[in-house]
This record gives sequence, C-alpha cells and structure tokens, in this order.
Amino acid sequence: MSFVAFVNGIVLMFLAGLMGVDAVLFPETRPVFTTAFVLTGIVGAMLAVAASAASPALNRLHTFVLTTSIWLVAALAGALPLYLWSLPPVDALFEAMSGITTTGSTVMTGLDSTPRGILLWRALLQAVGGVGFIVTGIALLPILKVGGMQLFRTESSDKGEKELGNATQFAFATLVVYIGLMGLCGLIYAEGGMSIFDATTHAMTTLSTGGYSNYDASFGHFDSAFLQWTGTVFMLLGALPFAWYIRAINRNIFRSEQVLGLLKGLAVAILGLSLWLTLNSETEFLDALRLVAFNVVSVVTTTGFASADYTEWGPFAVTSFFLLTAVGGCTGSTAGGAKTMRWIILYRSLRSQIRSVHSPSGIFSTKYEGQTVGDDVASGVIAFFTLYFATFAVLAMALGLVGLDFLSAVSGALTALANVGPGVGDTIGPAGNFATIGDDAKLIFVAGMYLGRLEMMTVFILFTRTFWREV
Amino acid sequence: MSFVAFVNGIVLMFLAGLMGVDAVLFPETRPVFTTAFVLTGIVGAMLAVAASAASPALNRLHTFVLTTSIWLVAALAGALPLYLWSLPPVDALFEAMSGITTTGSTVMTGLDSTPRGILLWRALLQAVGGVGFIVTGIALLPILKVGGMQLFRTESSDKGEKELGNATQFAFATLVVYIGLMGLCGLIYAEGGMSIFDATTHAMTTLSTGGYSNYDASFGHFDSAFLQWTGTVFMLLGALPFAWYIRAINRNIFRSEQVLGLLKGLAVAILGLSLWLTLNSETEFLDALRLVAFNVVSVVTTTGFASADYTEWGPFAVTSFFLLTAVGGCTGSTAGGAKTMRWIILYRSLRSQIRSVHSPSGIFSTKYEGQTVGDDVASGVIAFFTLYFATFAVLAMALGLVGLDFLSAVSGALTALANVGPGVGDTIGPAGNFATIGDDAKLIFVAGMYLGRLEMMTVFILFTRTFWREV
Repeated sequence: MSFVAFVNGIVLMFLAGLMGVDAVLFPETRPVFTTAFVLTGIVGAMLAVAASAASPALNRLHTFVLTTSIWLVAALAGALPLYLWSLPPVDALFEAMSGITTTGSTVMTGLDSTPRGILLWRALLQAVGGVGFIVTGIALLPILKVGGMQLFRTESSDKGEKELGNATQFAFATLVVYIGLMGLCGLIYAEGGMSIFDATTHAMTTLSTGGYSNYDASFGHFDSAFLQWTGTVFMLLGALPFAWYIRAINRNIFRSEQVLGLLKGLAVAILGLSLWLTLNSETEFLDALRLVAFNVVSVVTTTGFASADYTEWGPFAVTSFFLLTAVGGCTGSTAGGAKTMRWIILYRSLRSQIRSVHSPSGIFSTKYEGQTVGDDVASGVIAFFTLYFATFAVLAMALGLVGLDFLSAVSGALTALANVGPGVGDTIGPAGNFATIGDDAKLIFVAGMYLGRLEMMTVFILFTRTFWREV
Repeated sequence: MSFVAFVNGIVLMFLAGLMGVDAVLFPETRPVFTTAFVLTGIVGAMLAVAASAASPALNRLHTFVLTTSIWLVAALAGALPLYLWSLPPVDALFEAMSGITTTGSTVMTGLDSTPRGILLWRALLQAVGGVGFIVTGIALLPILKVGGMQLFRTESSDKGEKELGNATQFAFATLVVYIGLMGLCGLIYAEGGMSIFDATTHAMTTLSTGGYSNYDASFGHFDSAFLQWTGTVFMLLGALPFAWYIRAINRNIFRSEQVLGLLKGLAVAILGLSLWLTLNSETEFLDALRLVAFNVVSVVTTTGFASADYTEWGPFAVTSFFLLTAVGGCTGSTAGGAKTMRWIILYRSLRSQIRSVHSPSGIFSTKYEGQTVGDDVASGVIAFFTLYFATFAVLAMALGLVGLDFLSAVSGALTALANVGPGVGDTIGPAGNFATIGDDAKLIFVAGMYLGRLEMMTVFILFTRTFWREV
C-alpha cells in the first residue's frame, strides 16, 4: 500500500510543477500559485520520499485504492490555488473536481474579467485530467475489470506491447498524439482569430473534452463559423480511442466498431435535429447544421462547450439534449458517459436475446470487433448500466432533497455523472451557471463527477464489507 | 393461426356480453351500448364460428400473435361504446387502451357529470384488463420466455397443477381471489361512505390497479381517511402475486421474496417521504403518512389514483414520484412497471458482479426464492430493462417532437410504459388531464401503454425479419 502513497506524492509534485509554471507566467496571480506550489510540493515530496522504498508490486485491490485516491488527491490539490485566490472552499473543490474530471461545469461567473493565471489553471486541470483518464481507461480500468473494461486488456497491454515494444512506449505515443492534436487545434484556433492565450487554453479544454471556456458565453463568445467547425472536429477527435490513432498510424488499420458506431450515431442525431430546427425556426439549414453539430458533438463527447442556448429551441431540443447527455464518447479517450463500446455491446446482447426468445433452442453469441464477447465482459457492461442509472436516480433524489427543481435535479445528476458539463433548464443549462445553487447541492455534484469519472464501480467497491479486510 | 382468430372472437363476444349488461343497467346510455353490443357481438361470433374448427395447438410464435392481437382487439372493442357515445376516435382509443391496460390516464373531463353507463364501462375495462394481465403473466409470458418470465413456468403451471389438480382449477382459483378481494374492497368502500355505484366501480379500478375514478378530483373526491387507507391496502393487494395468495391459502406458505421486497421498498419510500413532508410543511406526521402512503402505493402499484396533488409538495416530491413511476408491483399481479422480481434479480446480478470484480476467480450465482437463476432468466431480465429504458427514451423523444414540454414528455413516456396513469407536471400530473394534448401525442401514449402492458419484447418480436417467415 505504501506504493500508493508514493504515486500520490509524485502526482502532487507534478501538479506543484504546473502551479510553478503558472506562477512564472502570470504576475497578477503569482502569490497565489507560489503559495500553492510550495504547499503542494512539500506535501508531495514528503509523501514520495517517505514511501520511496515501497515495492511497486500492486495487487488488484491496491490498484483500486491507487485509482480512487489519485483522482481525489488531484482534485484537492487542484482546488488549492482557486481557494487561495478567492473562491469559497466548496466552490474551489467543485471547480477543481469539474476540471480534473473534464466535466466542465463551472461555479465561476465573470470569467471574461478573471485573471489569466486562474483561467490557465482551469485549462491545465482539464488537460491533465484528460490524459489522466486516457491512462486510467487504457491501463487501470482493464486491470480492475470494471464495466467490461477487461475487454481492452489485450488491445491495450498485450497487443499494444507487441505493436510498440513496451507499455512505456505506448503511453509515450498516446501522450504524443494527445499533445500533437492539442497543438494542431490551438494553431487552427489562433489562425481562426483567437488570441494565443485563448487558443492555447481552448485547445486544452477541447481535446480533453473538458469544456472550460474563458468566457461566460462559453464558445458562443467566438462568433465564427470557422472556429465552431474547428471546435466540432477537435472535440470529436478527443472522444475517439487514442489506441486507435496509434494502431491506425502504425498499421493502417482504420476499422473500429467504436469509432464507426460513434460517427453513425452522431450523424443521425445531427441530421435529425438540424432538419427539425430548420423546419421549426427561421434558421437556414447550413446554419442549423453548424449550430446543431457543435452542440450535439459537445454534449455527446462530454465536452460541454455551448455555442448557443439550445434549450431555447423548444421542448424537443430539451428532451433530446437531456437524453444525449447519457451517451458519451469512446473508451480509451478523454470522453465520459456510458461510452460507445458499452452501447454496442448492450445493443448486441439485446439482439441476441431477441433471437433467443424467437428460437429458444439456438445459441447466439455477442461479438465485438470480430471477437465473441465473454460473459464476464457482458456482465461488466450490464453492471455498468445498472450502476449508471441507479447512481443517477440517487443523485437526482438527493438534488431534489436539497431543493433543486425537477429539471435541474435530473439533468444535473446526469450531466455530472457523464462528465458533460451543462444540464438543461434555466439554472444549470448551457446559458446558466452552477454558481447560484447551494453548497449541499454543489457537494452532491462533486460526488457525481467523481463517481462518473471512475465509472462508479471503482469507488463503490471500497464500500463493500470485505474490501478493507483483504487489502 | 386460425385458433388465434377463434380466441379473439371469444374475447369479442365476452366484451359484447359486458356491453349488454351495461345496456340493461343504464337507460341513459342504452342506445350506445346496444349498438356496440350488436356490432361487437356479430364480429366476435363471425370470427369464432368461422374459426371454430381450428386446432387449439399453438406453437410459440402463434402465442405471440395471440397475445398481441387479443390486447389490441380488446382495446378497439373497448373504444367502440366511448366513440358511439361522444368521444372523438383518438380519444376513445386512448381511453379504452388506458382502461384495458389498467393504466388509468384519462382524456375525459367533467367525470362528475358523465353518465353512469360510461363510468361503469371504464371500470369494467379495467376489471377485465386486470384479470387479463394476471392470466397473461401467469400463463402466456412464461411460455413466450420474455423478460425472464420463464422463471414462473414451474411455479405457475407445473407446481400450480400439482397444487390444484389442473390449470383450469388454478385459473378459476385466481378469478375467485380477484373477485373476492374486489367484493371485499367494495363492501368496505360502501361501509366507509361511498355510494353503491362508486364502491363497485372503485373496487374494480382499485384491485385491477387501474385507477379510473368517477370524479375529476380522483380519489381526492372522497375526503375520508378511512376510505383512503382502505384504498391504500387494496391497491397493494392488487399488486401482489395472485399465485402467492393461492399458495398461501392452500399450504400456509407466506414467504415470498417478491412480496417481502415490495413491502420493504414501499416502507422505505413511504417513511422517507412522510418524514420529509412533515419537516417541510405544516402537515402533521399521521396526515403526512396517510397522504404519502396512498399516493406512493398508488404510483408504485401502477394504480394511478391521486388523493392530493403531490407535485405541489415541492421539487423533491416531483423527482421522487417521477422515479417511483418506474418501479411497479409484483409479477403475476395486475400491476405494471418493471416488477419487483426483476428489481431483485437486477440487484442480485449486480451484487454478484461486484463480488466477482472483487475476487475475479470466484463464481457467484444469482438466487431467487432459494433457487439459482439461470442465465436465460438473467438475460431476459436485463433485456427487459434495456428495452424499458430504450422504449422510454424513444417515447420521450417522440412526445418532445410533437411539442410536449420536457416534464410532460419524460414523465408521460414513463407513466404510459409502466401503466401507472398520471405523470408529473401541470398538464398530465395528478391534478391534470390528458385531454388538452394533441392527437399525435395521444397516439404515442396509446402505443406506450400497449407496449408497456405486453412488456415490449412481445410486440417488438413481431417486427423482426424472420418472425413472419416462420409463423
């Protein structure tokens, strides 16, 4: 277990390093980030040094503790500069958890006049959270065997190793793709008219599917079709599996059921809603397509930028965007939600079931990417959906209990759990803000974002009777 | 297949008989019911006679056609007198489908001054629909093996036969219990101050968990704690498995995980909401308990009576009642929704899954009523939930598309699919009415109620590519 402490120490030192960079860059908030740098650095170094003799051998149960503790520690450290700057403790924790989990819900208003040091910190949290989740999805969740993620044991570790020599090289390749795409996105943003600072931070929050913007009007601040289309494309790129990029680059294999499934689903949703919007408003089809594509991609990839208040398009849009909130991107990407892989397996399990109701004597197996899906994977996927909806119901009830209206409670519970960002409704919708809700509700959202990012089971297992006896 | 036509003919003749009774009892609507009696009787007799030579041997695929066609034909016949009386065709179909599926959503206003012949017809539809669903749940769904209902093959047919000699006797015993409870309920209602007519019709709509009332204020019309507690008890009795009554009477075996699970769940929901209501309003605890117990039992048993507009209790109540709408009663009862059995199996599958994530080498089986649940049953249950939420999402989207607001769309989709009755929100909430919504939305509700009553799979299987080739 002391290796867990060691890794947490390293994570803290890394975050301290980023605070140092922020302190160097922006004089206005230098005292804040210097203090945070010193505090976080000292705690991190102490932890790392004290536990440096630890053996890096982790059993599965230790890996649960490692995964859950890293995300919590990172959120707390992320909150420190925000708290030192001016945010109340709960707000700072909310903002940092929303950042590190790449949710993108914000309690901060007046972003347009917020110091750049703070804005950069929010973007950095999302950039780090994004790559952190890719690593969690590729390396940790498959070992933990939660939510059917064991399906990716071969793809990520075994096959990945064969492809690239070893796991370190694979992780490095992922990082190169991530930072490469981020750089490209930033360049195009700058080319399209964003300032260098905006281009940098928005590239970070686009590729990480985080969705923090430097403006209260979110992406709607940039009144540019070019920028909106660029954002649409790069949000989508952030929600595709990073292992797939590497495979595609290395071996020219582009076929991927997850990628195809996500693209198909998006095409249907975007075309359908665009046609509906064209028929039910004064909007031209191409404008409708741009508006719808940006906002649908933003919600489905769990980014959470808004280029327009789509909840004003009418009740159909509200219901659609509410349901789209649950969808999510691909596994092994920065996106949250239920993930394309799970929808595909759920759909195919259902199809097998319909066939077996039709012909009870037949045997119908479920396939994914050409291979038969084992019972353990199918059960993991089913368990994910069960926990997803159960946790959603409990969060919605809890939010109702502390006084949120129905629309905010149900859409808030879902947007937190899927790490999307905005809900629907006046308060927390795309044009709203989480600032006005109470501290009790904010803490429920913090729990929801954390549970969603760790795919619930990883956290819930810590609360089973036998876990701590065996660790 | 001609046996299917024969049974449909018999069903029509039976409904014609009930129309005849209604015609005899109430002079005001006699012309309406006489016409309906003649038309339905002729069509029914023609069908039955033409197909009377049919062999009663049905294969499984024929049983699907039988089950789906009976419910559709019964709804159409049920709509006939309402249409002949004064309702527009879509309204008549809505009201009859809502009646026969024991949903209880109504498009009729001014119930207080509606002719008794019509009110009796609404109650009769629910009484018939209730017993029809018990038979469907005990005899047909287990054969169709949908939604895990094959679990009840032994309990209902094999064991039932041993217990009572043969299936006919079992069906007869069920009918005796159903009518016996209905009679008892009616007597106590009359004792508590209802008129004989009100007591009769409300007993029918209570035990069938239908929820049609003779008053616009629903059960709230009777301002009597005694009547409300009586209603609470008998709604609950209508949602318990009828096979369990018979087993309990015959062999003194009261243990049933479904019954226990439902009672436990209700106790938690009722106590929690009562405490909350006491703390957050001027209501005394015992009054709160009565109000909450009645309305929670009404929604969970999918009856749909309202004794108060609980959506005015605040946002927590709205969210709670929305979520309670999905729950449902026991299998083999008149209740709709997901059913206690399926929640138990879902919960236990999840628990097995958590254990296997914890110790991947262990084997954890799911048990129900002391027996290991087969993979086919577990898959059926999972398929049920998948279809339940998928159908819910599609219905909600469709309702949004035809212009319903978010609250009406999502709660309406759920209340129709679970055959509950009221939704939440101003339009279709407990104090509202489905009269004001458009015909397109009404038809979507009709589809939802029908799909919900037949547990979706039974209908969807008719739309698979191979079905009609093989029938």
